[in-house]
Amino acid sequence: MSGSLVVVGLGPGSMDLLTPAATKALSAATDLVGYETYLDRIPKTIASGRRHVSGNRVEIDRARHALTLAIEGREVAVVSGGDPGVFAMAAAVFEAIEAGDPAWRELDIRIEPGITAMLAAAAEVGAPLGADFCAISLSDNLKSWETIERRLHAAADGDFVIALYNPASRARPNQLGRAFNLLRTKKSPQTVVLFVRNAATPEARVVMTELGEADPALADMRTLVIIGAAATRLVSRNGRRPFVYTPRAEHEVVR
Amino acid sequence: MSGSLVVVGLGPGSMDLLTPAATKALSAATDLVGYETYLDRIPKTIASGRRHVSGNRVEIDRARHALTLAIEGREVAVVSGGDPGVFAMAAAVFEAIEAGDPAWRELDIRIEPGITAMLAAAAEVGAPLGADFCAISLSDNLKSWETIERRLHAAADGDFVIALYNPASRARPNQLGRAFNLLRTKKSPQTVVLFVRNAATPEARVVMTELGEADPALADMRTLVIIGAAATRLVSRNGRRPFVYTPRAEHEVVR
Repeated sequence: MSGSLVVVGLGPGSMDLLTPAATKALSAATDLVGYETYLDRIPKTIASGRRHVSGNRVEIDRARHALTLAIEGREVAVVSGGDPGVFAMAAAVFEAIEAGDPAWRELDIRIEPGITAMLAAAAEVGAPLGADFCAISLSDNLKSWETIERRLHAAADGDFVIALYNPASRARPNQLGRAFNLLRTKKSPQTVVLFVRNAATPEARVVMTELGEADPALADMRTLVIIGAAATRLVSRNGRRPFVYTPRAEHEVVR
Repeated sequence: MSGSLVVVGLGPGSMDLLTPAATKALSAATDLVGYETYLDRIPKTIASGRRHVSGNRVEIDRARHALTLAIEGREVAVVSGGDPGVFAMAAAVFEAIEAGDPAWRELDIRIEPGITAMLAAAAEVGAPLGADFCAISLSDNLKSWETIERRLHAAADGDFVIALYNPASRARPNQLGRAFNLLRTKKSPQTVVLFVRNAATPEARVVMTELGEADPALADMRTLVIIGAAATRLVSRNGRRPFVYTPRAEHEVVR
């Protein structure tokens, strides 16, 4: 008798952005595995399963623990912020499966998608991801800084809008400043830069600035940074924060 | 007296992936504006507002119509597939605002995020977007093919996982083949390629293949194509489709 494992995306924070499918998966679980901050978001009235709390920096161990519970016959939900497939728990689960007990890969395993941080951040300000874009994690816990630089160069060469996940943490205070400096060698100092903290929550905070003067100290672990393409622009308003969007066309095709 | 406008992301198709926030926005609307296929997805029991149906290829006119209704005092919901900010209606709304009646930009305008196609497609197969990735629309209705080629080159140079939106349509049958040919000059023929059609619906269909032999005829308007990074890999299973994922690390850091 073996159980199942579903990796559930909780979205950016508000229960109002949790999909009905994700809610059902949480309700059906006999066991919930996750980082404390994410588990604490889920009301007991929605999910009454046993909770297995873990720290934030041990994704692979958390995945192995969840897989072990599933093999024992439990219906396990691994909870993940945002979307599980975007810089979150899903890849860690498959890493554990590939390197682990061959029985793990025969389990019933499912991913429940969620609203990932860049979508919530973009919605706060307008439509900055309105043209081609890329998503890069600035964390070098698991990849080299050289790879991150290679991707920043490529993103600038392609004139992609750039969403930066994990822009800063206490252990990595300098990455974002290095990324800005690299991009300043390739992109205009007037390029739009957005710092969106706690997107889609009542505590949401937005700073709009330009690459030439963007201050990396404005970012922390709860911030998503968006760096515009050449065409990304502001639409001014009377006494209110401008809208920010990237036109679908490069040129004035539709006007 | 002026109304409001909210651009609502319906997600990939299933009502089970529509967020509670999006459902509330649809319910509160006095008027719903959108492409027929998307409006038809929304039960009248959820949204009783007046429905303004439009064709698929006139986003900017649809946006102007919605803004005109809002200025007249209506509470307007513009419905969008997936996430409104990703190759969907939000950018068209801001294009219309920027070029239109100055009163439009003073309206109360909001974006309700949704599950965009690449997240649903990724969830069908595992975690192919598990490392840095980019999203490129292959439609050259509004941008030049040269720009698309520039971005494909950059995506390959950065070894990003690539999600291709709008890979093919009746009017553009050849773009995907040209994109594959370009990528074949830069990436290994063993690179994982996924065709995911109707993700997150009961009709979901997945084809897993390699760049060297990927057949562009497998894609249509309802298909999302994912091209792996160098590290993207399959995890085989007994008698079932393999999982596909991209490890967070480039090297065997965590094993």
